[in-house]
Amino acid sequence: MTAQEQAPEAETTTEADGYRQPDVDVDAVRVLLDGPYREVRDLVRTDLVEHAQVLLDAEQMTTADFRERVLDVVVTMAGTGQTGMGFPEEYGGGGDIGASVAAFETLAFGDLSVLVKVGVQFGLFGGAILQLGTKPHHDAHLADVVAGRTMGCFAMTETGHGSNVQALGTVATYDVEAQEFVIATPDDASRKDYIGNAAAHAELAVVFAQLDIGEAEARERHGVHAFVVRIREDGQVVDGVRVEDCGPKTGLNGVDNGRIWFDGLRVPRTALLDRFAEVTPEGRYLSPIDNADKRFFTMLGTLVQGRVCVGGAGINAAKVALTIAVRYAVRRRQFEATEPDREQVLLDYGMHQRRLLPLLARTYALHLAQEVVAGQLHDVFSREEDDEHARRMLESRAAGTKALGTWHATRTIQECREACGGAGYLSENRFAALKADTDVFTTFEGDNHVLLQLVAKGLLTDYAGEFEEMDQLGMARFVAGLAVDTVVERTAVHKLVQSVRDLLPGGERWDQEAGLLDPNYQLAMLRFREEHMIGGVARRLKHGIGQGEDPGAVFSRVQDHVIAAARAHTERLVLEAFVARTASLPDGDLKVALDLLCDLHALSTIEADRAWFMEHGRLSSTRSKALTREVNALCRKVRPLAVDLVDAFGVPDEVLRSPELLGWTDTGPVR
Amino acid sequence: MTAQEQAPEAETTTEADGYRQPDVDVDAVRVLLDGPYREVRDLVRTDLVEHAQVLLDAEQMTTADFRERVLDVVVTMAGTGQTGMGFPEEYGGGGDIGASVAAFETLAFGDLSVLVKVGVQFGLFGGAILQLGTKPHHDAHLADVVAGRTMGCFAMTETGHGSNVQALGTVATYDVEAQEFVIATPDDASRKDYIGNAAAHAELAVVFAQLDIGEAEARERHGVHAFVVRIREDGQVVDGVRVEDCGPKTGLNGVDNGRIWFDGLRVPRTALLDRFAEVTPEGRYLSPIDNADKRFFTMLGTLVQGRVCVGGAGINAAKVALTIAVRYAVRRRQFEATEPDREQVLLDYGMHQRRLLPLLARTYALHLAQEVVAGQLHDVFSREEDDEHARRMLESRAAGTKALGTWHATRTIQECREACGGAGYLSENRFAALKADTDVFTTFEGDNHVLLQLVAKGLLTDYAGEFEEMDQLGMARFVAGLAVDTVVERTAVHKLVQSVRDLLPGGERWDQEAGLLDPNYQLAMLRFREEHMIGGVARRLKHGIGQGEDPGAVFSRVQDHVIAAARAHTERLVLEAFVARTASLPDGDLKVALDLLCDLHALSTIEADRAWFMEHGRLSSTRSKALTREVNALCRKVRPLAVDLVDAFGVPDEVLRSPELLGWTDTGPVR
Repeated sequence: MTAQEQAPEAETTTEADGYRQPDVDVDAVRVLLDGPYREVRDLVRTDLVEHAQVLLDAEQMTTADFRERVLDVVVTMAGTGQTGMGFPEEYGGGGDIGASVAAFETLAFGDLSVLVKVGVQFGLFGGAILQLGTKPHHDAHLADVVAGRTMGCFAMTETGHGSNVQALGTVATYDVEAQEFVIATPDDASRKDYIGNAAAHAELAVVFAQLDIGEAEARERHGVHAFVVRIREDGQVVDGVRVEDCGPKTGLNGVDNGRIWFDGLRVPRTALLDRFAEVTPEGRYLSPIDNADKRFFTMLGTLVQGRVCVGGAGINAAKVALTIAVRYAVRRRQFEATEPDREQVLLDYGMHQRRLLPLLARTYALHLAQEVVAGQLHDVFSREEDDEHARRMLESRAAGTKALGTWHATRTIQECREACGGAGYLSENRFAALKADTDVFTTFEGDNHVLLQLVAKGLLTDYAGEFEEMDQLGMARFVAGLAVDTVVERTAVHKLVQSVRDLLPGGERWDQEAGLLDPNYQLAMLRFREEHMIGGVARRLKHGIGQGEDPGAVFSRVQDHVIAAARAHTERLVLEAFVARTASLPDGDLKVALDLLCDLHALSTIEADRAWFMEHGRLSSTRSKALTREVNALCRKVRPLAVDLVDAFGVPDEVLRSPELLGWTDTGPVR
Repeated sequence: MTAQEQAPEAETTTEADGYRQPDVDVDAVRVLLDGPYREVRDLVRTDLVEHAQVLLDAEQMTTADFRERVLDVVVTMAGTGQTGMGFPEEYGGGGDIGASVAAFETLAFGDLSVLVKVGVQFGLFGGAILQLGTKPHHDAHLADVVAGRTMGCFAMTETGHGSNVQALGTVATYDVEAQEFVIATPDDASRKDYIGNAAAHAELAVVFAQLDIGEAEARERHGVHAFVVRIREDGQVVDGVRVEDCGPKTGLNGVDNGRIWFDGLRVPRTALLDRFAEVTPEGRYLSPIDNADKRFFTMLGTLVQGRVCVGGAGINAAKVALTIAVRYAVRRRQFEATEPDREQVLLDYGMHQRRLLPLLARTYALHLAQEVVAGQLHDVFSREEDDEHARRMLESRAAGTKALGTWHATRTIQECREACGGAGYLSENRFAALKADTDVFTTFEGDNHVLLQLVAKGLLTDYAGEFEEMDQLGMARFVAGLAVDTVVERTAVHKLVQSVRDLLPGGERWDQEAGLLDPNYQLAMLRFREEHMIGGVARRLKHGIGQGEDPGAVFSRVQDHVIAAARAHTERLVLEAFVARTASLPDGDLKVALDLLCDLHALSTIEADRAWFMEHGRLSSTRSKALTREVNALCRKVRPLAVDLVDAFGVPDEVLRSPELLGWTDTGPVR
């Protein structure tokens, strides 16, 4: 039975207002979503189906066995080429960064330990060697890394320092005599912690440490640098290194996270990944980037792909949950409603539509926004010449999208679990693993709140030249030193607000005259909010610091506004991506369907913050109520399309599991 | 170091407005929270400390072993008397229902498989025999149940019927010849599902089934009744019963959930739990309650204690998470802020205060509201005579508090996990288990959305005599048949709105003139919202059905308003409980501290729905912004008290685990 057949009659026929329910061509939507990388995504789907058993193994194996199993799957998948898409072809890679993101995202449909181990090995570890190293490092390691012959880890985070990486405690001191670095962990707060691949499998590690040069009195510190270091030889931890298992985790137990201490480990001078700085044999420090902060952030910036990938993974994990919950909601009946003696399917309840369908629309929105970020990543990293401004914009956008995408995953998976009732609590459905495994997404690869502060810093300083050298307090002082209007006028959104308003009827009264379904109205609202919030933060910082208050105390008080502004900025980018994509479609049912989703996303986003719009004079109480009614009406229109819209995600049936929820027969997943 | 010492100077000294930061006497707050059952709660705390190892076993044992371990702990705890508080003393119980709720709630500080197994055995299974059976059943079973010698299960839910229990498919047909009931599972949708204790340990089951009497043509169905049935003999499943393990679950894997099929199982006539209906040997059906729907809901109503207990458990699980996150937030430093060269502790960041402190205030609010519900439960069930109205009010209140308390648990645990960053992801902290184990609380013992519909039904019909006989559509039709004013005027909140307004300055302009910190203003706001929402639902139902629309379609469209009204009602009751409790305190620091929390709870509750208040003319945009500023100011005032306020929950250090987060030394949990 299709969703259309189950929908109440009124939804599928022509309504009084001339609205005709569109037919969704599932494959056409999937072509749109898969974008230029359909082939890559299908390769990953094939791999996922082949290894679908790993989802069951996650439940049934001991942790030790499951770690080995995940390693096997990762290495096997590496053989298909899907995990090496982003590496140069000369080392066995695919030479296509966009493809590597598409592959990684799609991998998130399956077991997430596999995903994260792939991310650690090829994204973080391999990526660091590629981005921070030079040809000798590439020649020495990349072919083995890409093939999965050499496993490695990315030893950045320390117990005492997660978000504030510049304050790491591990030290690498250059010994001129021996022409070696001596790596040491000064205290337990400086041990490397939560490091994926460290507890069991990594032979090599990229270690981030403070680089010191010179004798005791004349010692000079040059900030955090990365070194490629052997931590295991034939599976045994080498002398000078101590490793401890982090033990069981909420999820992702197929990944061997560990702690590492260095006890004066000696590594050759060439261990320094020296793309951005080198130490000559005689101990001279040379870098093309003079400023230490700027150098540090430039190095970190090359690792942005990790954030792009985690954001995409979160969005795709949400798709799995939605696919199960929506399909269940058109099968499950509970309580009599419209038809006598027959219970009503869940998705015909208004509340159930409200719970699931705005999340479905938002998943489409985030998918399309993520496609833009991935495209920018591809461009920035495929270009020969460095475009500093494009790089900063990308870093900011990746940070914002990662935050929104991963929070969306947490929220969507939880809502979908609850929407499947007690049945959703069984592990044979995907929710148990999805919840447990994705939980850390909001705080790894950058804590979401810290990432949004980074976004805000960019907005407020207009990515000024000195942008990368500022910490939060530096940013607060910088902004306080400018006129509020200057801060606002320098933002990209400032011009956009004006241009979109000119397209709307009503002049200054655009917010009252324009139709709720006019995308220019929707964009104008989000742009107005962003601009106003940036101005508000600038005003508050200026006021507090101008009155001589302690900048730290002022920042602490304004922090929620700072984060709200960053969120508003990212929400605006997400909606722009959705609007632009639907605008590009030819007229027809596909466009009608995507427009419905886009409207639902836009209006439910405005609705969620309608208090703010009312407080700031951009939404009357009457219009606010009309907006809520429109969201409900859009839910009813999307409802008959819902199953097709989740099917278009292309999550293979084999990885959905959920035999009871989805009514698979004994012979396997048959619809 | 105490929290006070770590707080910024400005917070602890006298401020310009004469505000003096109170000192919190942790023990005095704990006396207040523990209430009349401090002794019982301390008994449970002692049990929890003694069995703290079970938290580690949950991680390290196989599922089969852990189930046995949990069984052992439950039986051992039964020996201390803490699990039998609610049973009559003649069967070894404590004869004190309030004490049994207090004991159960406190048990939620520890491993939640133990909690849920206690709930299944003593609450659901034992409770059903106590409430639905008569003296012969009590004499036959209760002493063994209370002592934990006979384990049982509560076989109500079926695969096809979770929320709509009246539509269960299992049938018990009376065979006059044999004077036996024949229990049968007609199809797989009617198998009993997710039944705790069923997969391994239950010897007996209370089975809910449609009671049929008579031969094929003349067969009469009397609705759902409960039977006490042996399903295992010496650990072996008996003939006529088939049991299947539900397999691994998201959490609570120490509880053996299973499915049960009955294949014509014959049980004696006396197996019927016959407090509300009996079948004579010759097959006559007798009941003091004529109406079948009313009888069914009366029977179900006696089981309300389960909901009260789950709500309390959710609130107490949230306390564990908050205790860890708040203590961590005054130890962990990240980024330089107020002091040069020293990073700032997390809880001095405005955003971190915003994330944790309103949740802390809400936990206090829900705790005190829960105490009222538990008190009403105690009164209703300790009374000799039946007070039908009090019973209905209790059922409604228990449903609403359970929904809010369990959603609060899900949200709070998630926020606390994220507030502990990647470190919070390790299982050695409590978050992994807390998240996984509490996840089902929102959908078991009544799905939260369904429970809120029940609350709304009571509100909208004023618990009319025919209240229990109505399903959702019956309710919709009933309300549509009344004048909107009639619906509103009959509600309890109607008079309350007027009475509290009279206490406020400004007359009709009370919402503009009264101070934000005036509890009468806060109460007036929540009461106004509730009254207005009830009227709005009535108006919408009346309008739609009056225009001849299908009542099912109308209900579906109005459903989110129905649920919002129920939520508003419950929020009002929660705030009333908090305000009443603080009002009863003598002047002094304790009162000042509790007033701060109460204000923070009240204003953040209003703030969360400030859009609604603006839409309905009760909050100007200026006042709305002032309200947000006041919430921020309250957070800053509560911040120096936060550690003391979580310490007052009295969660034993031994069950907090979290050695790294809390900085325990090797010798154990030392502060």
